[in-house]
Amino acid sequence: MTERGAPSLIDVAREAGVSTATAGRALGGYGKVSQRSRDRVADAAARLGYRTNGLARSMITGSTQTLGVLVSDVSNPFFATALRGITDVTQPAGFEVLLSNTGGDVDAERRAMAVMSEKRVDGVIVAPALPSEGAHLARAIDVGVPVVLLDRLASGVPNADSVTIDNEHAVAEAVGHLVELGHRRIGVITEAGGDLAHLRKGNRKRGLLPSAVRLRGYFSALADAGITADETLVGAARYDRESAYDAATGLLDLAEPPTALLCTDNVLASGAYRAAQDRGLRMPRELSLIGFDDEPWTTLVRPGLTVVEQPTYDLGVRAGKQLLDRIDGGPGRARHAQLQAKLVARDSTASPR
Amino acid sequence: MTERGAPSLIDVAREAGVSTATAGRALGGYGKVSQRSRDRVADAAARLGYRTNGLARSMITGSTQTLGVLVSDVSNPFFATALRGITDVTQPAGFEVLLSNTGGDVDAERRAMAVMSEKRVDGVIVAPALPSEGAHLARAIDVGVPVVLLDRLASGVPNADSVTIDNEHAVAEAVGHLVELGHRRIGVITEAGGDLAHLRKGNRKRGLLPSAVRLRGYFSALADAGITADETLVGAARYDRESAYDAATGLLDLAEPPTALLCTDNVLASGAYRAAQDRGLRMPRELSLIGFDDEPWTTLVRPGLTVVEQPTYDLGVRAGKQLLDRIDGGPGRARHAQLQAKLVARDSTASPR
Repeated sequence: MTERGAPSLIDVAREAGVSTATAGRALGGYGKVSQRSRDRVADAAARLGYRTNGLARSMITGSTQTLGVLVSDVSNPFFATALRGITDVTQPAGFEVLLSNTGGDVDAERRAMAVMSEKRVDGVIVAPALPSEGAHLARAIDVGVPVVLLDRLASGVPNADSVTIDNEHAVAEAVGHLVELGHRRIGVITEAGGDLAHLRKGNRKRGLLPSAVRLRGYFSALADAGITADETLVGAARYDRESAYDAATGLLDLAEPPTALLCTDNVLASGAYRAAQDRGLRMPRELSLIGFDDEPWTTLVRPGLTVVEQPTYDLGVRAGKQLLDRIDGGPGRARHAQLQAKLVARDSTASPR
Repeated sequence: MTERGAPSLIDVAREAGVSTATAGRALGGYGKVSQRSRDRVADAAARLGYRTNGLARSMITGSTQTLGVLVSDVSNPFFATALRGITDVTQPAGFEVLLSNTGGDVDAERRAMAVMSEKRVDGVIVAPALPSEGAHLARAIDVGVPVVLLDRLASGVPNADSVTIDNEHAVAEAVGHLVELGHRRIGVITEAGGDLAHLRKGNRKRGLLPSAVRLRGYFSALADAGITADETLVGAARYDRESAYDAATGLLDLAEPPTALLCTDNVLASGAYRAAQDRGLRMPRELSLIGFDDEPWTTLVRPGLTVVEQPTYDLGVRAGKQLLDRIDGGPGRARHAQLQAKLVARDSTASPR
């Protein structure tokens, strides 16, 4: 016996009384083998505790039954939940997930794609780090690795399927809710502050990240409501609570502060909520606040936070299904699914006093 | 050329002007090849856009540079954060993570271990679904796959390394804090209600899950403080907020309710917090509350929640390092690392009125 006493294919063939070639075909699930031989080999393998060599089988079948998933940070609840959605549909279909954290860095993403490709994954789901850089994703598709874009699009990857949230509509719902309550000075806390100039020029390529789409949606929604946008009400923040705290404080310090704040994700919302608390502002009478993502804390705080709830788990489920379809040789043309978010009104929003 | 126009090893060898065997050794990084041939092959591979076949290389080297990680639910922030710790040390070392959600089901875990084994992972990190069932983990070790247990031990796996939290000590800190403030009627919200009878009998095998260890720690800490435990103050809950809400409500409904509640994890704490809020109890004067895990919401609620903060990220980092050590042929005997949690006192705990 080989490999630390583990039984080999030869041992199984001998035990089953068939040729090694027949045992190999029976265990690998390829080629022609009689039912009788198949049963004898399966019994022999079970008796000996034979472990199928997935590598050898993959070399023959061309499939590793493995999918790559590339996200910036799996400890971010958004990606953790989407990943759960992905594995909930792909594991039962017999696929395991090879996970890579890119840290939102496009070079790390390129390296990870190369590794995935070398490991011969059957397909990849990726939340592109930099939507303007899609060449490495297009290359993967060219060599036969299907790619599904998750949560964001990328330019230069026309053949990739995508599953995203309808972010423009999501923000329109939130702004519409505030306008209906009578707000006119509506501020926004955003990660896409750096894209302001690009958005003004209508540069779509820079506007593919959810944060940029949401900022664009904020301006469109104000325009639709007949409100002239005031760029001093745009609070630019990095993706952390402290930075959002500072951005919110900056807006609330204005001579004419906003009466409502829209925070374009959950981390930013927690920073802004804290800023309003520390200032002693009574929400919602003195400030209305809306966040993104419905996390457990939004119902524990007083007042409860009005949020735009994203279908994060479904986003992962849908991406997983599209990739499985594509691996099965699914439709020729790329498909782009957009899921709808919904507004959940709680006590942090009301008419301005 | 083979595979949808992708260049083959033969193409690279021809381009480099060397034999196929030499090209294979140079690209696979094994065997003896002159520096000159190695460079020629590398250049030819780059010119042709040759993609190394990781499967073929793995068959030869015996290493897939892949690790298996098995947890109950990656969308649980605890496991998502630990997973990030694992990948932060293993990715830079050239290992990718193959992820499996077991849903806390031991049969799913057995199947996942079989898949991992078939895919020839170089090692596995697992948070065992059922600590009393470790035979399949022991079998993996027997055939040469190192196993590191994460967050919980399992019986019958004497050769597995482990990285856990010192849960008994963590709970002792929390109970000690309450006792120091003057509490004597201290309730606990626990998932391990079903283990009460086993704990009474000193059955260690049933007591390996963190929830059971924490419940054991609660009883020891009370005994150390000279307080007679009152089992009516043990609120048994399932692992969800609603169930914890009901358990907390049950304790607060007692003729002689507890003056303080210890919740043995973050989900249970959020349910109990809500129950106290809905009852209109003023924390901390009318009820002191302690949770586990320091999540963002614990500082947004009023009063802020006193918690036992687990070093979750470090737990993952440590498990990743131990597995890498083990793959490198590390120390012969199994190593058991215990990390310390720490108490973070906030405004939800004070002396009883």
